[in-house]
Amino acid sequence: MHPTTIKTYAERAKLHPNPTARRLLEIMERKKSNLAVSVDVTTVKEVLDIVRSVGTKVCCVKTHCDIIQDFTLDFAKELVRLSQQMDFIIFEDRKFADIGNTVTLQYSAGLHRISSWADLTNAHPLPGPGIISGLSSVGQPLGRGLLLLAEMSSKDNLATGQYTTEAVQMARQAGRGFVVGFIAMNRVDIPSPVSKIQKVNGMVNGHGHGNASVNGNGNGYGGDKEMEDYLILTPGVQLSKGGDTLGQQYRTPHQVIFDSGCDVIIVGRGIYAVKGKEAEVAEEYRKAAWEAYERRLRC
Amino acid sequence: MHPTTIKTYAERAKLHPNPTARRLLEIMERKKSNLAVSVDVTTVKEVLDIVRSVGTKVCCVKTHCDIIQDFTLDFAKELVRLSQQMDFIIFEDRKFADIGNTVTLQYSAGLHRISSWADLTNAHPLPGPGIISGLSSVGQPLGRGLLLLAEMSSKDNLATGQYTTEAVQMARQAGRGFVVGFIAMNRVDIPSPVSKIQKVNGMVNGHGHGNASVNGNGNGYGGDKEMEDYLILTPGVQLSKGGDTLGQQYRTPHQVIFDSGCDVIIVGRGIYAVKGKEAEVAEEYRKAAWEAYERRLRC
Repeated sequence: MHPTTIKTYAERAKLHPNPTARRLLEIMERKKSNLAVSVDVTTVKEVLDIVRSVGTKVCCVKTHCDIIQDFTLDFAKELVRLSQQMDFIIFEDRKFADIGNTVTLQYSAGLHRISSWADLTNAHPLPGPGIISGLSSVGQPLGRGLLLLAEMSSKDNLATGQYTTEAVQMARQAGRGFVVGFIAMNRVDIPSPVSKIQKVNGMVNGHGHGNASVNGNGNGYGGDKEMEDYLILTPGVQLSKGGDTLGQQYRTPHQVIFDSGCDVIIVGRGIYAVKGKEAEVAEEYRKAAWEAYERRLRC
Repeated sequence: MHPTTIKTYAERAKLHPNPTARRLLEIMERKKSNLAVSVDVTTVKEVLDIVRSVGTKVCCVKTHCDIIQDFTLDFAKELVRLSQQMDFIIFEDRKFADIGNTVTLQYSAGLHRISSWADLTNAHPLPGPGIISGLSSVGQPLGRGLLLLAEMSSKDNLATGQYTTEAVQMARQAGRGFVVGFIAMNRVDIPSPVSKIQKVNGMVNGHGHGNASVNGNGNGYGGDKEMEDYLILTPGVQLSKGGDTLGQQYRTPHQVIFDSGCDVIIVGRGIYAVKGKEAEVAEEYRKAAWEAYERRLRC
């Protein structure tokens, strides 16, 4: 059992150095929700309608601001207001994937000014550590958080094996101030418990979920692994398994939270595509994911 | 010597099935320019000023529309008008990196409507082939082209080795209608000539530039490799070697075009940061890259 998965969200909130991670964990505990809704719709009205319907059920609203045809900073302000009123965090799923100089501008500038309203965003580790340096120069002073994409949910993606291992290492090398976790399908951060002997040797060899195999002694990460606390947010979730025609693959809340030890399920079409019943369906997801978490704590 | 690198751009233009690739190769020949300028500036006025200064020297203008604070579709229209008047193609360096369903919307919708004005865009192969299916469903009917990022220029990036090999395979599996080439540092598409014996066996083992090792017989690609023609566009170019503080690394035009056999150099800060002398400096880059190409043809 991964040490992080047997702690309550409340316990984890108390110890986290990043304000956004702390707030997310507090909200999860307070609302008994480890459900994020992904609002992949293309107008301000649709986004706000869905958020108003399901905002009380979720810990996090995930946006794609660049698909919204009438996006304005006033809309962003309204979303921030709702996030305070309905108690959720805003996660712009930008998947930054460029060199440091460019992502710095993409995060802070342009029509969207993502850093001015999104509590959390994410980036691919692909361009190397410069992407984290660039984004943190903008986001860390604002108390924002960053997730690295260590795995993806889509068919035949390349974020596997050594790639995933390097994503985790890059997060560790960056420290805990800005990189607060991963987008992943599994508990990619040291899946095995740290034995005393391993600790003395400074070596941790991950196993159990197939992907992570981490040398805890490497390159700037030499710390106390019990202090580590990465949030794992997992996309590709529906109440029944399946996929779409463009390679998306779905798992259930129980698989994600109980079997794989992840922290938050991200549900998109499973909620927003069920027109008129969004709140009802969101409650089903919230309940399923929360029960899986409670069951995990009892193990 | 890679077979593509000993053909003229004019010869290659005649045979290419994709209209954007064909137009780019024709422009390169007509203007004697294998120089793309990257306009990484944050206002419409700055972008247009740079384009008006250097537009006649370049075959391609590379944009980051999401860093422009006053972007409008009218600006995009003006850019398209200039691209016709000054004879260059527009390449939006979006680095799509999401699942098929999402990139379809990011490419066609939102405030930027990239597919409506950008001749060329690019994507990371990381999410798997669904990203190509999604983008091509929008772009191919419009005659647009897509580059896959097979390598990156930034320090300690993860687009190396097997990742690069899989990027090239993914392009081959997608066919030649929409994926027209790569962002790469090297000639990643089969660096070695295809011998008759290899052709009989259906096997091509790449070597020479360290990254590509491609099984030409695999999964949907069984064709005549002499017909293959991928454009390789290469970022991270300055007249002198060096880097920035966020991990960018620079090579010279000669290294990129002559030594590595790439097709187009992409120059950003090397041109637009030399205020007031953009046209003069662009001409230096154009000349250096074109001479490297002519020298390559004589080998």
